[in-house]
Amino acid sequence: MRSVYLDHMSATATDQKVVEEMLPFFSENFGSPSSHLHGYGLKAKKAVDESRSKIADLIQAKSDEIIFTSTGSEANNLALRGIAHANKAKGKHIVISEIEHFSVLYTARELEKEGFRVTYLKVDKEGVVNPDDVAQAITDDTILVSIMHANNEIGVIQPIEEIGRITKNREVIFHSDAVATAGIIPVNVSQFGVDALSLASQPFYGPKGIAALYLREDIDIVPIMSGGAQEGGRRPGTDNVPGIVGMGKAAEIAKSEMDSRINHLIPLRDRIIEELPKRVKYLHFTGHLTNRLPGHVSFWISFAEGETLVLLLNYNGISTASGSACSSPDLQASHVLTAIGVPPDVCHGSITVSLGKDNNEEDVDYFLETLPKVVDRCWQMSPLYEDELKREQQT
Amino acid sequence: MRSVYLDHMSATATDQKVVEEMLPFFSENFGSPSSHLHGYGLKAKKAVDESRSKIADLIQAKSDEIIFTSTGSEANNLALRGIAHANKAKGKHIVISEIEHFSVLYTARELEKEGFRVTYLKVDKEGVVNPDDVAQAITDDTILVSIMHANNEIGVIQPIEEIGRITKNREVIFHSDAVATAGIIPVNVSQFGVDALSLASQPFYGPKGIAALYLREDIDIVPIMSGGAQEGGRRPGTDNVPGIVGMGKAAEIAKSEMDSRINHLIPLRDRIIEELPKRVKYLHFTGHLTNRLPGHVSFWISFAEGETLVLLLNYNGISTASGSACSSPDLQASHVLTAIGVPPDVCHGSITVSLGKDNNEEDVDYFLETLPKVVDRCWQMSPLYEDELKREQQT
Repeated sequence: MRSVYLDHMSATATDQKVVEEMLPFFSENFGSPSSHLHGYGLKAKKAVDESRSKIADLIQAKSDEIIFTSTGSEANNLALRGIAHANKAKGKHIVISEIEHFSVLYTARELEKEGFRVTYLKVDKEGVVNPDDVAQAITDDTILVSIMHANNEIGVIQPIEEIGRITKNREVIFHSDAVATAGIIPVNVSQFGVDALSLASQPFYGPKGIAALYLREDIDIVPIMSGGAQEGGRRPGTDNVPGIVGMGKAAEIAKSEMDSRINHLIPLRDRIIEELPKRVKYLHFTGHLTNRLPGHVSFWISFAEGETLVLLLNYNGISTASGSACSSPDLQASHVLTAIGVPPDVCHGSITVSLGKDNNEEDVDYFLETLPKVVDRCWQMSPLYEDELKREQQT
Repeated sequence: MRSVYLDHMSATATDQKVVEEMLPFFSENFGSPSSHLHGYGLKAKKAVDESRSKIADLIQAKSDEIIFTSTGSEANNLALRGIAHANKAKGKHIVISEIEHFSVLYTARELEKEGFRVTYLKVDKEGVVNPDDVAQAITDDTILVSIMHANNEIGVIQPIEEIGRITKNREVIFHSDAVATAGIIPVNVSQFGVDALSLASQPFYGPKGIAALYLREDIDIVPIMSGGAQEGGRRPGTDNVPGIVGMGKAAEIAKSEMDSRINHLIPLRDRIIEELPKRVKYLHFTGHLTNRLPGHVSFWISFAEGETLVLLLNYNGISTASGSACSSPDLQASHVLTAIGVPPDVCHGSITVSLGKDNNEEDVDYFLETLPKVVDRCWQMSPLYEDELKREQQT
């Protein structure tokens, strides 16, 4: 059976060139950058410095504006908590969107418990935040706006530059969660007008366990963990040197191959978007159809439960995701689908297909052939579908 | 020139068997355990479960009592902040020792800013905490005692079991930072009577970037980061699968080779401790001479600056450390050396020699031959040493 991996929003295969770059830093150049009084430490420090500079390059930042963290979730936590705590004397109001990642959404809720006030901006039916809503939400008490660059579940890309112009004008700090976009589509921190931006290594074929927060050099932050002086005192703990080296190499490759990857992915994505409605009845796309991540297609199908579809697709060798790539902490309906107006009873039912650089037309063909069969099997199990058929026959 | 690495407290070479175990999880079994509706995710989940069980085995805990973190520092932060915040209704007093790692010490100071009261226990001249002092420090308001298992800088091992009996008796939660000991000497959480214990992969030849907090199943904790449901909702973010697999393999090997490693290291350590005073005048050991980590020797030498010694040793191919392996956030004299009564003017001056499993007698010979020469060169640069020589000639 053909094996087709279409879940790149959840995890990617680390590039072989990246793994090769990391390998010497496990058992050969294994020093800790903090121990730079000897050769092993110095070599590690040099490698970390070089990687930091490659990652800064990817998003057009300066090297010392990159703070390494373990995950995108940690970067988001550090950004929200750290900026809120450092600026609480100036104000206690924060603006985010309703469709942020759990690590932004639940951090905002924790900050509410501490006395911060949070405005949760609505999105339109295509999942887009209206910049005018951002402008209207900002008050004299607002210290931070956090709007993600693209949503992992529905793929839609937000008007970051417009929001950046508003926050700059109103002198409010602007953070963007770019975990789903950095290394995949162009991210330029000064063009975006962001003061802080989260990115992770894994989405652009780097290793898991390493990510970063870009923090503009004049922005204050209170660390969320205490300890040693690593990362300029902003994030303690022994550096994950192989991880950092891997993320640096992946960033370098992502920068040089970005255009060709995008040009490869968009036609594959658009073929799925064009073909699916012809082949599957009752199919509803989610998110904007063109203003979306290059390899990303998301939809739900009436009378077909999302998890069942994912399981049946897996049974046919195809890996996809239902809802967010990350586990929902409360097992409720997806907050993203609810926000774009998907009926609550199908909010468990969405499918996210995320293509990667190594997918090809044959993969797409196989998916387009397989999905209708799988949906049919789903429908055969559904009493609601039977009712619908009867209704259709009567009319 | 011979290359002799004697800085295993700062970093170790990841075991080749560990790296081999990790490799398939970068580019082949690259799934995320949260995406367990398809085969890639399932394989990753299985691997993470197996590793968790191997790590639990190492310290005689249950699998679901292991929470993966990125570093030992994160585990310490999670333990102190998380337990303090979860138990603040019961009391606001915390007891730690003066010689804890920065990630415990500075976290305690942050908790003080939040209204917690912290008692910093003194240690004796050999660096040992007196269990009676723990008993006396505990009040009705005490919720947490955190005493490290062994100090990385001076190697001394604390009377954890005695302290564990006291905390159990007084119904106070007991956390121990075992980053310097877990995987190196026996750590048994029930025998120790600890409720929480931090451990890291790197000290026992696992990869950097992965560590864990053992938390007894009935102990409440408030996460320090918000987000997805990973680690039972106690630590969000995509799992570092290769890191976790590496830590698991390293734990498995550490368990089976622990006795032979200890039996290999102690004679090497004791030879240094026996020989050094014969070869170097004005040498002062720090920490207890026998109740210490198997491969650990630490000392200071009058009229010889520690960092200079480390640099000159490095010039001769020998890697060692001065003071803590971790960067001091405030560049002050080592708090550990100050606590054991080392004169403040030499508190920058200690040397930590930490042997590893691959060091041999020739390494020790080379170090014993080289140090006296290096110390001589240091002394030649020291006006204080000249004064001392004059004083000696006059008497």
